[in-house]
Amino acid sequence: MSQAIQKLEKRIKSANSLLSVGLDPDFDKLPERFKKLEQPQFEFNKWIIDQTHEFVCAYKPNTAFYEARGEQGWKELRLTIEYLKEKYPDIFTICDAKRADIGNTNRGYVAAIFDTLGFDAITLHPYLGKEALAPFLERDDKACIILCKTSNPGSGELQDLLFQSRDDSSRDPLREVWLAVAESVANDWNTHGNCMLVVGATYPDELKQVREIVGDMNLLIPGVGAQGGDVEATVKRGINSKGAGLVINSARGIIFADNPANSAQTLRNSINQYR
Amino acid sequence: MSQAIQKLEKRIKSANSLLSVGLDPDFDKLPERFKKLEQPQFEFNKWIIDQTHEFVCAYKPNTAFYEARGEQGWKELRLTIEYLKEKYPDIFTICDAKRADIGNTNRGYVAAIFDTLGFDAITLHPYLGKEALAPFLERDDKACIILCKTSNPGSGELQDLLFQSRDDSSRDPLREVWLAVAESVANDWNTHGNCMLVVGATYPDELKQVREIVGDMNLLIPGVGAQGGDVEATVKRGINSKGAGLVINSARGIIFADNPANSAQTLRNSINQYR
Repeated sequence: MSQAIQKLEKRIKSANSLLSVGLDPDFDKLPERFKKLEQPQFEFNKWIIDQTHEFVCAYKPNTAFYEARGEQGWKELRLTIEYLKEKYPDIFTICDAKRADIGNTNRGYVAAIFDTLGFDAITLHPYLGKEALAPFLERDDKACIILCKTSNPGSGELQDLLFQSRDDSSRDPLREVWLAVAESVANDWNTHGNCMLVVGATYPDELKQVREIVGDMNLLIPGVGAQGGDVEATVKRGINSKGAGLVINSARGIIFADNPANSAQTLRNSINQYR
Repeated sequence: MSQAIQKLEKRIKSANSLLSVGLDPDFDKLPERFKKLEQPQFEFNKWIIDQTHEFVCAYKPNTAFYEARGEQGWKELRLTIEYLKEKYPDIFTICDAKRADIGNTNRGYVAAIFDTLGFDAITLHPYLGKEALAPFLERDDKACIILCKTSNPGSGELQDLLFQSRDDSSRDPLREVWLAVAESVANDWNTHGNCMLVVGATYPDELKQVREIVGDMNLLIPGVGAQGGDVEATVKRGINSKGAGLVINSARGIIFADNPANSAQTLRNSINQYR
């Protein structure tokens, strides 16, 4: 098991929490008092982190909200991860970047996200296959979180295509593409014990099937709150044999709540109630 | 047809070129004289652009090489696109970012790549489906270049899975996932005439099939040169009914050549020889 995954599992225990807070500081939605500051996204994140840290196992900034502000946003993403590493080094950090390129090019992203910024984990598209993702998958100190069944309403367009193996076209039942991803990651990509999968809370039945395939592997679950995923269904269908194995992310529902600390504590407790 | 696609087609004619140069200034590979400068990637790009511009229809920086250097890299990417827009406004600009998130989040990438930086086009993963990509696909002034069959040796792991439609499981022949992407983009995603597809030069047979599906749609072709794709096969299998429709990218083979201008001219001419 990779150091990053060990760190996650240790934090889940010590904080008694499966909650991840999405640090998605959409500039237009920031409270007015932050918009005026020189580093609005970083200052907002700091404010969120300082009041929610005891309730979380992970923080997950999504790069889109930072890139929208160019190099200034990229700088505030860096300040955020530096703040987390210094002040709360036990908390698992996920860069929700959804990257994936050919192997040679992925080395740039590895340098950017794992080394320069120092995140514990990154989210990745599976479309180019294991061979292309090798620069990420080789990192036995980090965690690679592969998109499997995403939370958006239209995720089925490609992910639910039914495929048949080339070798044995008559016997095997048809299976979905997302199932192929879950099986490949569990049985082939995870040689360093550093893989996780993304499964949306909006698809609890698929979550249950993924859990059956991947054993105790940790899963990142977006889609509770604003996207409509149900906490009880998510926990009951997704929990692993150790009563954990889930990192349930909420962003808008916490960071833009009237009282973010309260919202984080409430969701953490609500999740724990069903474990 | 979107303004960006019109711009591309006009440039292909005026420069008589299907060549795109990949502005992938991997810091470690830069000539020593650039490494010492304050803005090494931007200065290197300027040097490449000034000597190759007359031979190209497009420039394609890949974000990985810039992100590897944090906010400084992001700044040099911005300086590069600003330089292109000011000095060579007729040249098509592709941000090879390979992004894709859920709809709400994609708005951040749209702001970053299309609006703040002002690229004509972006490359996108298809895994989340059309619904998620709507913020990109709605932009009828820009171009959306969807990954279809990628150039890497292991691209078949997911892309070559054979699928069957749910409705008519007995009649339709099994088809690959990349074919599903080509069909969806051609028949459904391209309502604004702003879509293109990525097909690797390393898969000429697949390129031919894609051409049959998408009509005259423009295709971005990585994989000639360092990755081993053949120019003649690419042009002969990929050309559209107007003798164009291809944007053939080379990065390492040109930007790190002893004489980049010569290499660009030679490849441009070699491509034209088979049109």
